[in-house]
Amino acid sequence: MPMIDPAFLPGSLPLGDLALCNVRLQNDARWPWLILIPQRAGAGELEDLSREDRNRLMDEIVQAGAAVRAMGAALGFEVEKLNVGALGNITRQLHIHVVGRKTGDGAWPGPVWGVGLATPLTPGQIDLATAAARPCLGISV
Amino acid sequence: MPMIDPAFLPGSLPLGDLALCNVRLQNDARWPWLILIPQRAGAGELEDLSREDRNRLMDEIVQAGAAVRAMGAALGFEVEKLNVGALGNITRQLHIHVVGRKTGDGAWPGPVWGVGLATPLTPGQIDLATAAARPCLGISV
Repeated sequence: MPMIDPAFLPGSLPLGDLALCNVRLQNDARWPWLILIPQRAGAGELEDLSREDRNRLMDEIVQAGAAVRAMGAALGFEVEKLNVGALGNITRQLHIHVVGRKTGDGAWPGPVWGVGLATPLTPGQIDLATAAARPCLGISV
Repeated sequence: MPMIDPAFLPGSLPLGDLALCNVRLQNDARWPWLILIPQRAGAGELEDLSREDRNRLMDEIVQAGAAVRAMGAALGFEVEKLNVGALGNITRQLHIHVVGRKTGDGAWPGPVWGVGLATPLTPGQIDLATAAARPCLGISV
């Protein structure tokens, strides 16, 4: 079982595990959006990871970016820019957001965090996003 | 001369160069805040950097985090959480924000980007922030 703060559960869906991170799909149809949660007890900042883990995280962020682009293509959201952020002001367990953005999206050109209310994905959208993301992440069903 | 989009100039001040990134001090007294700009022509996303450069960038982000904590201490802003973000929706040259946050700051717990207007640093604050940041970054005067 992945080691994740229960605060992640209501707003996102499990997608699978990479070498370092548990990956979750943000349950918000407004943007293609993944969350990477390094599976290291007590990590709250990047500096809490070993250098080896930090490099692995960087690889996984780039993989997640490719997955977000693929999710966007599957959902009719042409990703124009990736936004990557490690904030954690509310949920302190280290996690990295990888979000697809395009001109005119619901928060453009500002950040997505804290903007309005999530629009839950439909079951069909979850299937499409999951099927698009997994090959980019090397996660099998 | 560092290779940076002129859009960075009005809101930030030059601090020095690391192995990969040019470092700028965000001219905003509301938060201790550094910007890292990888010196690689045409890079707009993390995926545009080589794996070696990405790992170097991760090292420099951690160094910048230590510098932001030191800047906060020098300016009376006790950093409680680091926020790291690569957005670039407006200025497309790849750049990474490293921002110190604390409970009750001017955007807490939301993100800082796009919030209100910058409060320019005084000359004294610039001196304090610069003197605090440089040793953490290994930048000499």
